[in-house]
Amino acid sequence: MSGDGLRPDLPGSVCPAPIHDRKRIVLGHGSGGKLTSELVQNIFLSVFHNDVLDRLDDQAVFEIGSVRLAFTTDSFVVTPLFFPGGDIGKLAIHGTVNDLAMSGARPLYISAAFILEEGLELEELQRVVSSMRAASDGAGVQLVTGDTKVVERGKGDKLFITTTGIGVIERPLQISADQARPGDKIILSGTIGDHGMAIMSTREGLEFEGEIRSDTAPLNGLVNAMLKASSEVHVMRDPTRGGLATTLNEIASRSKIGITVEQQRIPVHEAVQGACEILGIDPLYVANEGKLVAFVASADAERVLDSMRNQIVGVEARIIGQAVAEHPGKVLMKTDIGGTRILDTMFGEQLPRIC
Amino acid sequence: MSGDGLRPDLPGSVCPAPIHDRKRIVLGHGSGGKLTSELVQNIFLSVFHNDVLDRLDDQAVFEIGSVRLAFTTDSFVVTPLFFPGGDIGKLAIHGTVNDLAMSGARPLYISAAFILEEGLELEELQRVVSSMRAASDGAGVQLVTGDTKVVERGKGDKLFITTTGIGVIERPLQISADQARPGDKIILSGTIGDHGMAIMSTREGLEFEGEIRSDTAPLNGLVNAMLKASSEVHVMRDPTRGGLATTLNEIASRSKIGITVEQQRIPVHEAVQGACEILGIDPLYVANEGKLVAFVASADAERVLDSMRNQIVGVEARIIGQAVAEHPGKVLMKTDIGGTRILDTMFGEQLPRIC
Repeated sequence: MSGDGLRPDLPGSVCPAPIHDRKRIVLGHGSGGKLTSELVQNIFLSVFHNDVLDRLDDQAVFEIGSVRLAFTTDSFVVTPLFFPGGDIGKLAIHGTVNDLAMSGARPLYISAAFILEEGLELEELQRVVSSMRAASDGAGVQLVTGDTKVVERGKGDKLFITTTGIGVIERPLQISADQARPGDKIILSGTIGDHGMAIMSTREGLEFEGEIRSDTAPLNGLVNAMLKASSEVHVMRDPTRGGLATTLNEIASRSKIGITVEQQRIPVHEAVQGACEILGIDPLYVANEGKLVAFVASADAERVLDSMRNQIVGVEARIIGQAVAEHPGKVLMKTDIGGTRILDTMFGEQLPRIC
Repeated sequence: MSGDGLRPDLPGSVCPAPIHDRKRIVLGHGSGGKLTSELVQNIFLSVFHNDVLDRLDDQAVFEIGSVRLAFTTDSFVVTPLFFPGGDIGKLAIHGTVNDLAMSGARPLYISAAFILEEGLELEELQRVVSSMRAASDGAGVQLVTGDTKVVERGKGDKLFITTTGIGVIERPLQISADQARPGDKIILSGTIGDHGMAIMSTREGLEFEGEIRSDTAPLNGLVNAMLKASSEVHVMRDPTRGGLATTLNEIASRSKIGITVEQQRIPVHEAVQGACEILGIDPLYVANEGKLVAFVASADAERVLDSMRNQIVGVEARIIGQAVAEHPGKVLMKTDIGGTRILDTMFGEQLPRIC
């Protein structure tokens, strides 16, 4: 993998962070990196804070009566609507299914709210809707309620979709970004960077030798296999916006542990690698839509790994590093050339509207 | 009330429906009227159909384990963001709370997904978020999870919010638009047209003698009082987009009953009435955001009415008509001048981006 297209002090961006007056929204606020985190903390959490929200996981977990539920929402604003390996509809279903699965929940029901721009071709909408149906069937969830709004031409961008999901947590688990412990092995389910680079190469009209396809996929089957294999899965996250590096930083910070990973163990498709090098982008900061990273008790790691490799979306799963007691909150990577690099959270916007 | 600004064959619009090639989205697809219904039927239901979705209520109802839940989603694209009586944030919380309450559910948890346009002032966002917190507290719900996306300048319109809610149905009720029965009394909780005309007068910079304020309000307390008073509440709906006339048509059609209402029993604030007359709009087709219409067994109607009048949002509640066995699917209104008029569903767009 590359990893050297970026200065270590400025991850996710090859030029200085955009200067803004901090009084207005900039694209970087949607990156999933530091600016997003600032926005969430200063504007949303400071006002809304409560026990459930403050956990800062990608899903809320609560009990109603005797039932333990997970609940998650995401807006999708990806452009273009269709790209190699998927489309906005498939992404919306998989994204919500995966956020539920990352808590150990079995995803059950989905809602979808559509914001349509005047002038959108009905045929395009039909293709997206059919794709959502297929993705729902594939993931074993039902779309049970929805909404449609229309905005004037120039006040939207063809189609935005917000999906929200409910799942049930049937095992007595406490999987959360703050549950990693020193000694945990870090498992990555497959290659990184595929989704983001599929969008980028479509958007820029770039041609690469091997076609780059989004990895969008439902991960609930994979998670189910992992949880059958071990009750010592402490953290699961799908590294979407901000990529693997940002996700690892969140976990290090929330669990107050250090993380060490080995660059050579992190798989990147050759075409993705090539595209990243040309564009000066580090795949560690590129969004994935069908991958997960898990922190598992060392004794169970091989068993979990075996269970993953029996699943189509987990055949390339591998251990990429571990949680350590040293350097809490920091992620260190042993590079291919033998050095050690600090992996920081992405600052601003690398790839706008990637999901 | 006016009611004569419109030709009866073309409700909700004073000029012919816009000619479109039926291959593209037009503003009317977001009206809540016939075009919305066509879109939902042809594009969404034909693909997604399943037992829960096909009920076509404003919320899905299902069981998980021993718990019966309601689940609903809505995108809010109202412009302007702030208007007399409310703002997009308040509207988003109340809208979702009310859709849950209309099934007899006790609203519990809300998610919020924000699509921000580059350039939005953080101060505006802060005001909206604070308003959402106050509205959540007022309605007794918790905002527990969320998402933020940013789109480039000119690809959105400041701020869109999608709220999704979960509520629990604790009483053995089956409240749905298909449950009205001949003989049921129709109760309306208060004046109509306030929300839509508050938006319109702000947007157009119109000045009316009495200030027109949105009626946005949470209705879960009102519903709770009604359901304590009677187990024979058959249908509840909040007449939002498309107004009271469209809501009554949906119920007539779904329950296969006829409806008769009396114009003189339907209250309209004087300033709203005046604004409607100037703009050639019929308040029967104007959106409300803090009103409900209920179909209640005749024997229980007065008891339900009494329970409503003890609530701030129900002091003006009254019986406006009844369900009949004749003319199934049709809504007839006795007009102030003694005639009878068919109230049809709104066809296209009367007031775009009203919620």
